[in-house]
Amino acid sequence: MSDDKRTEKLRKLAALVRYYILTSTTEAGSGHPTSSLSATELMVGLLFGGAFRYNVDHPEHPNNDRLIFSKGHASPLFYSLWAAAGKLTEEELMTYRKFGSPLEGHPTVAFRYVEAATGSLGQGLSIGLGMALNAKYLDKLPYRTYILLGDSEMAEGSQWEAMQIAAHYKLDNLIGILDVNRLGQRGETMYGHDLSAYEKRIASFGWEVILIDGHSFFEILAAYEKAFQVSGKPTMIIAKTIKGKGVSFIEDKNGWHGKTLKKEECDRALKELGEVDKSLWGEIRKPEDLKPEERVPEASAKKMDYTGEKSVATRKAYGNALVRIFPKFPKIVSLDGEVCNSTYAEIFKEAHPEQYFEMYIAEQNMVGTALGLSCRGKIPFVSTFSAFMTRAFDQIRMSQYSNPNIKFVGSHAGVSIGQDGPSQMGLEDIAMFRAILGSVVLYPSDAVSTEKLVEEAAKHHGMTYLRTTREAAPILYPEDEKFIIGGSKVLRKSDRDRITVIGAGVTVHEVLKAYEELKKEGIFIRVIDLYSVKPIDETTLREAATATKTIVTVEDHYAEGGIGEAVGSAVATLPVSLHSLAVRKKPRSGKPAELLDDEEISQKAILWKVKELL
Amino acid sequence: MSDDKRTEKLRKLAALVRYYILTSTTEAGSGHPTSSLSATELMVGLLFGGAFRYNVDHPEHPNNDRLIFSKGHASPLFYSLWAAAGKLTEEELMTYRKFGSPLEGHPTVAFRYVEAATGSLGQGLSIGLGMALNAKYLDKLPYRTYILLGDSEMAEGSQWEAMQIAAHYKLDNLIGILDVNRLGQRGETMYGHDLSAYEKRIASFGWEVILIDGHSFFEILAAYEKAFQVSGKPTMIIAKTIKGKGVSFIEDKNGWHGKTLKKEECDRALKELGEVDKSLWGEIRKPEDLKPEERVPEASAKKMDYTGEKSVATRKAYGNALVRIFPKFPKIVSLDGEVCNSTYAEIFKEAHPEQYFEMYIAEQNMVGTALGLSCRGKIPFVSTFSAFMTRAFDQIRMSQYSNPNIKFVGSHAGVSIGQDGPSQMGLEDIAMFRAILGSVVLYPSDAVSTEKLVEEAAKHHGMTYLRTTREAAPILYPEDEKFIIGGSKVLRKSDRDRITVIGAGVTVHEVLKAYEELKKEGIFIRVIDLYSVKPIDETTLREAATATKTIVTVEDHYAEGGIGEAVGSAVATLPVSLHSLAVRKKPRSGKPAELLDDEEISQKAILWKVKELL
Repeated sequence: MSDDKRTEKLRKLAALVRYYILTSTTEAGSGHPTSSLSATELMVGLLFGGAFRYNVDHPEHPNNDRLIFSKGHASPLFYSLWAAAGKLTEEELMTYRKFGSPLEGHPTVAFRYVEAATGSLGQGLSIGLGMALNAKYLDKLPYRTYILLGDSEMAEGSQWEAMQIAAHYKLDNLIGILDVNRLGQRGETMYGHDLSAYEKRIASFGWEVILIDGHSFFEILAAYEKAFQVSGKPTMIIAKTIKGKGVSFIEDKNGWHGKTLKKEECDRALKELGEVDKSLWGEIRKPEDLKPEERVPEASAKKMDYTGEKSVATRKAYGNALVRIFPKFPKIVSLDGEVCNSTYAEIFKEAHPEQYFEMYIAEQNMVGTALGLSCRGKIPFVSTFSAFMTRAFDQIRMSQYSNPNIKFVGSHAGVSIGQDGPSQMGLEDIAMFRAILGSVVLYPSDAVSTEKLVEEAAKHHGMTYLRTTREAAPILYPEDEKFIIGGSKVLRKSDRDRITVIGAGVTVHEVLKAYEELKKEGIFIRVIDLYSVKPIDETTLREAATATKTIVTVEDHYAEGGIGEAVGSAVATLPVSLHSLAVRKKPRSGKPAELLDDEEISQKAILWKVKELL
Repeated sequence: MSDDKRTEKLRKLAALVRYYILTSTTEAGSGHPTSSLSATELMVGLLFGGAFRYNVDHPEHPNNDRLIFSKGHASPLFYSLWAAAGKLTEEELMTYRKFGSPLEGHPTVAFRYVEAATGSLGQGLSIGLGMALNAKYLDKLPYRTYILLGDSEMAEGSQWEAMQIAAHYKLDNLIGILDVNRLGQRGETMYGHDLSAYEKRIASFGWEVILIDGHSFFEILAAYEKAFQVSGKPTMIIAKTIKGKGVSFIEDKNGWHGKTLKKEECDRALKELGEVDKSLWGEIRKPEDLKPEERVPEASAKKMDYTGEKSVATRKAYGNALVRIFPKFPKIVSLDGEVCNSTYAEIFKEAHPEQYFEMYIAEQNMVGTALGLSCRGKIPFVSTFSAFMTRAFDQIRMSQYSNPNIKFVGSHAGVSIGQDGPSQMGLEDIAMFRAILGSVVLYPSDAVSTEKLVEEAAKHHGMTYLRTTREAAPILYPEDEKFIIGGSKVLRKSDRDRITVIGAGVTVHEVLKAYEELKKEGIFIRVIDLYSVKPIDETTLREAATATKTIVTVEDHYAEGGIGEAVGSAVATLPVSLHSLAVRKKPRSGKPAELLDDEEISQKAILWKVKELL
């Protein structure tokens, strides 16, 4: 096709896409037509101009180029593109935003061409970074990853985290397309149409920048061509666009964000568009039929061995476990936020440097990257201090809508870290991860259970969180003990049990010490190690509740959303008296034992509580 | 004092500070001496070189310059500076990191000279931004705000959020001091000693940059002088430093992060330092004795008036309330994340533009800024979608350690937002805010209770979260109804009540509809509006539990950490059967009513549940 013919067809496709955007949003009565119209040429040019390579019948093809709408509210454009590609009928398009339709308000993986759910701004670039990292360093495939970005969302710090890390890893297979349409939700953005403001910032972060008119197919196609020539760094195409482009009475006007046209306005707009050719469809180039580089699994796994060791920190057992199970799970990738010598991801890093990516102190991007890797079939283990997992809560929250297979590992949980003080103490992490739909929350008390649970986490497809402890802990379990997601261990049990005391992690040891003291006085308690906080072992807990009628939970975490409430929910319908020992005072610096005492979650407090309740 | 004499004294003070850093950390056996040594000259120069103005006997003086250690792990330096200023004895310094000492591992407000707790990296700049904003636009005072930054923490996106907003607001009273010591916790930073990498990034974000040798008092003092001349933009002093500076055998060496010297190593190090003069003390300039600009309270407040209105969205009532109560609370400041036309902070913005700051889509910095304003006596109301509050969880978490007086307002809570889909739905926000120590969580069901609770939030000193709803809701309460933090409303009650059904926010209306249906069938339920989720009205809940023996909670939030678990904790010791209706499926796009039905939290589900339990 000649250049003129090519852009002529693209122009017609753009008109068709605009037609779909306008009619589907007016039919839905909500949505973001103006934010879709500004990026129409950019995306039509990408998909149907020959740059994008994608097997439309096999969205899962490992060598497909990847496209993520970080500005997820432009979903009408996304769906309309796939309609123009012949993969959605006009009738299907008209189900946009209706209950049961895969065409949700913001893109979700219910629609087969969506790589990852977006809609919370400033997340798409990190997800794409994970995919690009996968292509360049793991699968060794030539696919490219494209991210459509909005100008408003460039205010999010997560963007600059992704920007720096993408440059650091020289991701020349990552291409951002910045749709500078000047207007945010409630008015002008910080920089309006000043493209140079973006140019200098993005270039300073080590990216190639290409400035274009985002409505000129000539410039758009040339920009993609130019981006393909860039080597050793990612490229950002910075496009000046008009919000609402193509509909004169809403173009570049404030007050039209997230607003659809009324029926009569839509008719007027369609008249402006002119005749559209619905028989037209856009062709997308097929990718080369390449497969990911195969990893040859190593011959044999190391065995777990804690013989002779009295005390091992669970965080250390985490590192050991990753190395041990890697031959069984060669898709494991380790990401860490510049604390691998504390989380002990370091042990894995040293054994398999090619499977480790330093993510520096930028937790939001780390989680987005993990989601991108997970979307491409990897099993990312993401580690940092449990306290700092909170930094990425929005990314964690969003990933639940993309069928994630991400393993979070938070070290330095609770006041038991001691002297470093409250800023470093994870005390809300259980509440945070429990609140995620379908999540798994594991909290081992010794090295053996840690190793077993890391393996269970790797086996499980989904989002898991494993909480580890800074201090060394006595080995409790023999190496052939079995641990399952949703299980628990009844560590002490007799017919004379008067109260059930439930611990997890560091408090299991406190409960066991209290057990010994109480036993001396002829008082028997049932002791449960609740290593799986979610899902929770309802059967065992309900049995204990029925047997002892009184339950005490002990946790190194704030009371709300923690283990006490998890147990409470499990036995909610039973007539049991529940008592929660948890962190309830502002924690301080001090020795771990002093802090456990001060917060009344140590052996002493357990003894006191049990006696009070008898 | 001549220049030579001045730097001579500063050099002696630096030696004394180093002595204190080394001895206090060795005594503590943990801490970060090397990260403190690198910034010693930078801080000694600032405090004792004549730049810093601070009334050491009145830390609360409104015109004191402000100093925040964003790299909180350099706390030994911070404390040592105040020892050198004569405000801590050597004996007190030796309590560093010990239980009960105000000198915690990372700075907390237990120590009187700490402006805000730090230790989670990348937060100090935002806090300082709030203080600088206060000086320039609210108090109209000439104090300056200084932030000591680490190079590792520049990887955090929150830094770049703060960077852009500080430039946007032309904060020439904000001075960052970047301690580029090359080494992070586990090795070299992304840019090592390449100062130009920082220079070009920071300059591109609109800051003045000054590059110096961070151990030369001559360059340090000149840099501060130069920064004072800069107008219309903030300044970053980028200093090349040596980690561990002053102790030859740890200088610029990897493996010495967060590691203290053993006794004998410390002795060697002290020998290298040479004789120090403990009688020396550093003088800090006093500030001008100026007071904040007084705001003349407006004559009279508008009255609340919903007469004739059937349905009003609680988010709208929030905006109305802010305007209404402002004359009573003239320290209110509104911050919003570029969605003020959705959260209705816009109503306040239009009435009091000088008290409103647009924070753009950068929630982390918004929360840090709010903390800074709160530290300077303002009452910041921080609004965005409840879903996006998760973006700033780490900032929210950290602020709990700084006696915050911040009012969070999250709109668009729950699946009831409808078509926009899961990315925009706040479904973990109650769990998140409940998990914060001493927080208040409010969730009004109508416009009147919203207005009253906004006022209660303003009155209350502390962190409050108010959850609002997108859709209009019927007015339930008369305008003279009273609402208190920790209260609830028993909306329906009789002697024949067989089950208590508890709702909050949008579900209160569903429960009331179910009540009417059940009543027709002669079934009576007790209905409670749990508008204060934390603290919770234990008395009323326990009374209801005792009376009806069965409780059903209904909430537009995920089950974990939400209202069901909050109620469960309140009645944990009673023999009551608890049942929670909550969001348990992956939410979709659809009409609000369809989604409430689908998630089984609507009238229908309540009817079904109540009948099942009878």
